[in-house]
Amino acid sequence: MLSKNQIKVITSLDKKKYRIKYQLFVVEGRKSIQEFLESDFKLDQLYSVEDMFEVPDTKKNLISETELKKISFLTTPNKALATFRIQESKPIDTNRLIIGLDNINDPGNLGTIIRLCDWFGIQDIICNLKTVDLFNPKVVQASMGSLTRVNITYIDLHSYLNSNQISPVYGAFMDGDSVYASKLDQNGILILGNEANGINKTIEEFVTHRLSIPHFNPNKKTESLNVATATAILLSEFKRRTIEK
Amino acid sequence: MLSKNQIKVITSLDKKKYRIKYQLFVVEGRKSIQEFLESDFKLDQLYSVEDMFEVPDTKKNLISETELKKISFLTTPNKALATFRIQESKPIDTNRLIIGLDNINDPGNLGTIIRLCDWFGIQDIICNLKTVDLFNPKVVQASMGSLTRVNITYIDLHSYLNSNQISPVYGAFMDGDSVYASKLDQNGILILGNEANGINKTIEEFVTHRLSIPHFNPNKKTESLNVATATAILLSEFKRRTIEK
Repeated sequence: MLSKNQIKVITSLDKKKYRIKYQLFVVEGRKSIQEFLESDFKLDQLYSVEDMFEVPDTKKNLISETELKKISFLTTPNKALATFRIQESKPIDTNRLIIGLDNINDPGNLGTIIRLCDWFGIQDIICNLKTVDLFNPKVVQASMGSLTRVNITYIDLHSYLNSNQISPVYGAFMDGDSVYASKLDQNGILILGNEANGINKTIEEFVTHRLSIPHFNPNKKTESLNVATATAILLSEFKRRTIEK
Repeated sequence: MLSKNQIKVITSLDKKKYRIKYQLFVVEGRKSIQEFLESDFKLDQLYSVEDMFEVPDTKKNLISETELKKISFLTTPNKALATFRIQESKPIDTNRLIIGLDNINDPGNLGTIIRLCDWFGIQDIICNLKTVDLFNPKVVQASMGSLTRVNITYIDLHSYLNSNQISPVYGAFMDGDSVYASKLDQNGILILGNEANGINKTIEEFVTHRLSIPHFNPNKKTESLNVATATAILLSEFKRRTIEK
């Protein structure tokens, strides 16, 4: 049986304020929970409709489908929900290509970008402070466990670039040089901007290479690509070069 | 003033059944509506909170923000909503690369793929019959006007491949040949499968080239990429070849 207070705490975790207060975040679904259990993240409590994970009894809560519905953030709850402890990010490895996100708003976009970074072997994402929180339930959901394998650091991107000698600094722009024809190093940072406003002027100052994805439609009416699909194309192009014949 | 019946008809258009009955679909937001007005699609009625489009008076309806909220499918309605007439797709141009979608379920994914096709100069998308409907309001929203520039045909993909000599037939698989190392023609068809189940066995028979996006993370735990991001990477690679130095 879930107590009223448990329900209240768990459902409050869609808000950053309460995630900070309780130092907890929510993971849903068998697969994602299993990936978090196998990671460095520490389990707080597990709520499931059947006994499906090997965790200490003190952390197990068998609940009904009805109870799961009450605490789930999904339209169709998926057998289990777990709360994990928020943990600090690890030091950034500046010898490898880093992804910098300048105020990405949409949780689905951030989740997709985390999944892409995991696929393409990117270890570090640096997020400007206004970027949507990585422990937002929708980000956790969209990242599908990749959150356990990519190190995400929230930082003032301007100060970070100002005080660290990161080079090259690639930025994604509508009017940059074709990514296909550009020399692409496997270190430095690649910055992606906000969905509506692109990269901030104050961040743009640091960019040494303006990259863009060429338009292949002669009418050129599509104004831009979604930031997650642009990230997919840029990362594919960076990583393709490492296996070039 | 909107009549009760107008509200009823417009809000019913989130269901395919009613879109077929009335032969109408909904477009929201100033930019998207403008793109549809400039296209072959025929305007049915326009509902806006201010006079912002050049359309015949008989099709103009000035409404309040409160009324717009009643008919909008968006959480934050965007100044205007229009109903347009559903129209038949045009003949498929088999001399150029076609995208084939084998039962894509998610409207956001279909919308993103339409936008990508527009960007990369793909003229035709063929959708298997169970693919989410292109006039679904979420598809129209996610495609951001690209729907007016890409020709989308719903067809039994198996019969189509069986009765047309389309070659090559590329398919996206988890275990195919690296897209980066494969010869890619600028004609034929590239098939993307359902989000959960991939390409149907009956469609797979026709595939002449199994393509995949290599995994760059040594732990290889990310199981798959989202179908829209996979489409982004594959189309980027097909089109990059056309501007190869």
